[in-house]
Amino acid sequence: MTSRPTLASLAEQLGLSRQTVSNAINAPERVKPETLRRVNDTIAATGYRPNAAARQLRTRRSRNLGFRLMPVEDGINGAILDRFLHSLTENLQEHGYRVTLFAARDDEAEIRSYDELLETSDLDGFVLAGTHHGDARSDWLLARSVPFVTFGRPWNVSGDDKDCAHSWVDVDGRAGTAEATNYLLGRGHRRIGFLGWPAGSGVGDDRRAGWASALDEALTPADLDALSVGVPDGTRQGAEGARLLLERGATAVVCASDSLALGASEQFRAATPGNPAAVIGFDDTPVAAAMGLSSVAQPVEQAAKEIVDIMRHVLDGAPDEQVPVTHRLLKPRLVLRDGGGPLASPLSS
Amino acid sequence: MTSRPTLASLAEQLGLSRQTVSNAINAPERVKPETLRRVNDTIAATGYRPNAAARQLRTRRSRNLGFRLMPVEDGINGAILDRFLHSLTENLQEHGYRVTLFAARDDEAEIRSYDELLETSDLDGFVLAGTHHGDARSDWLLARSVPFVTFGRPWNVSGDDKDCAHSWVDVDGRAGTAEATNYLLGRGHRRIGFLGWPAGSGVGDDRRAGWASALDEALTPADLDALSVGVPDGTRQGAEGARLLLERGATAVVCASDSLALGASEQFRAATPGNPAAVIGFDDTPVAAAMGLSSVAQPVEQAAKEIVDIMRHVLDGAPDEQVPVTHRLLKPRLVLRDGGGPLASPLSS
Repeated sequence: MTSRPTLASLAEQLGLSRQTVSNAINAPERVKPETLRRVNDTIAATGYRPNAAARQLRTRRSRNLGFRLMPVEDGINGAILDRFLHSLTENLQEHGYRVTLFAARDDEAEIRSYDELLETSDLDGFVLAGTHHGDARSDWLLARSVPFVTFGRPWNVSGDDKDCAHSWVDVDGRAGTAEATNYLLGRGHRRIGFLGWPAGSGVGDDRRAGWASALDEALTPADLDALSVGVPDGTRQGAEGARLLLERGATAVVCASDSLALGASEQFRAATPGNPAAVIGFDDTPVAAAMGLSSVAQPVEQAAKEIVDIMRHVLDGAPDEQVPVTHRLLKPRLVLRDGGGPLASPLSS
Repeated sequence: MTSRPTLASLAEQLGLSRQTVSNAINAPERVKPETLRRVNDTIAATGYRPNAAARQLRTRRSRNLGFRLMPVEDGINGAILDRFLHSLTENLQEHGYRVTLFAARDDEAEIRSYDELLETSDLDGFVLAGTHHGDARSDWLLARSVPFVTFGRPWNVSGDDKDCAHSWVDVDGRAGTAEATNYLLGRGHRRIGFLGWPAGSGVGDDRRAGWASALDEALTPADLDALSVGVPDGTRQGAEGARLLLERGATAVVCASDSLALGASEQFRAATPGNPAAVIGFDDTPVAAAMGLSSVAQPVEQAAKEIVDIMRHVLDGAPDEQVPVTHRLLKPRLVLRDGGGPLASPLSS
């Protein structure tokens, strides 16, 4: 530790002034290319790293991004954001960035945390999850020119999400539920229900729209109305919603989450024992795998990687470089299992 | 943002020099108590916060603790550390601390990350999980006087863990498997197997010891030997281990993880259909709840809280205060379910 190179020892070794070495690190445009190359070679060879706090004052870069950790709910659906965080951390690490975690109960508290973190931790930017209608967080960050990317679309009530002023990466939930519904149609089902959340959530309405679009020709609008049930997320609520759908003649159901699907699967298994694969969940959680439930898988690892790529472009570019706003909608994948209960083998999809 | 108070505006408002206000913040012992009170009152009223990087240079405190995020494996057992991280983040947040996440493949990479983070992020300390025999991480941190607390005992091969030179909080796994085994004895089982990991892991051997101690009088040493199986963690491996135990006449099994229990439960259900509650897992994951499996629950929220309390004591104390090393062993809780499959109701324990 004591033999670690310093700015002074580096300057001495190179026969340069400390100011020149400092410039090479913090304002390379002021240094001749030949000198810059010599300094960089020596930095690489000696493993010199500038003191963080001192460097931060000069470069205003902490190489740290903030991310809000959501509270644990039933441990089933939250798993997708935990997986995203693992992947985000690993991808950022590869490029010398870290994640600073904070907790917040709601958007307002999250914004207060942004304010405080920007002041006390000098974060370079944020990654946001859980975007929703009327999301105040992105406006707050845009107004202050804080770099950020959201995992999730802005879900503007009106207007095209493509017009959105900030970068986002999202998964095409509508395509996922449409694929799931088409699969069930192919298995001979007609009265396929949708078990989602109460109307008004961007993510939930999008997943419902995919189901509805696939059934456009098979069912009347009145049937579509009857076969769409919205309940708060949870296993118990899923069981209740499934009972309602079974009463209305549903023979299969596409669900907005694995929590709902877990509750629904018990009801459908009991009501239609010969028909085990009639419930499809969303997020392909460990619980879905353990229960042998089919589910729509989000490519969260790819989403994390794309978010990191966008962030690097913004943060590692020249200060006056105008980085284009990027919108990426990723395709989910239907993971089929035979629904026969625990440890059912995956089928080819 | 533009109207945010600064050191200068604060000094002007108070009719004090900037140096006096700065001293009140960074070296309060140099300021008269009456002046200190006035400055602190004004700071509280105006919401003044010193610039982070500048303050860091003076106080050498970032109010940030490092934590290594483990890679996702099957998504079942890892859930316990994700829950711990959520709770750690929320507890730290209450006291103005944040978590900086990093990824590392092994201990060596984790130590390289410590080294780099201490240099580039000025972390105040670390929280470690996954302690094990010959853990080089704690020695590295102790040698450099870096504050840290481990979630997990040091698992010294020889010597008493109480002699350990650093603070730790852990859960008494041995007590958990002993309670699970005693419960099965109370239900009339005698040939109760243990399905764990290969010998040599501190955590795994401890859980096995709890099972063995509870069966000390019921079984011969030869029977204990035959009824203890060690396999790598995983559902498939759990199913294989369970087949071996069933061949050896086991009627029930205590498992070192819910991944193993999930695999075992299918085998035991098939072999002894009238006896559904004969498999007990460890960690009470969402998968165990979904499958109606009994499991030993770790009080991870309490563990996180105690770790934060110890860290605060170390970090918020006076620089020359000698904080005693703390060791806390928490009691787990047996969560009983009827084993009847998905959504089995919890029984009273």
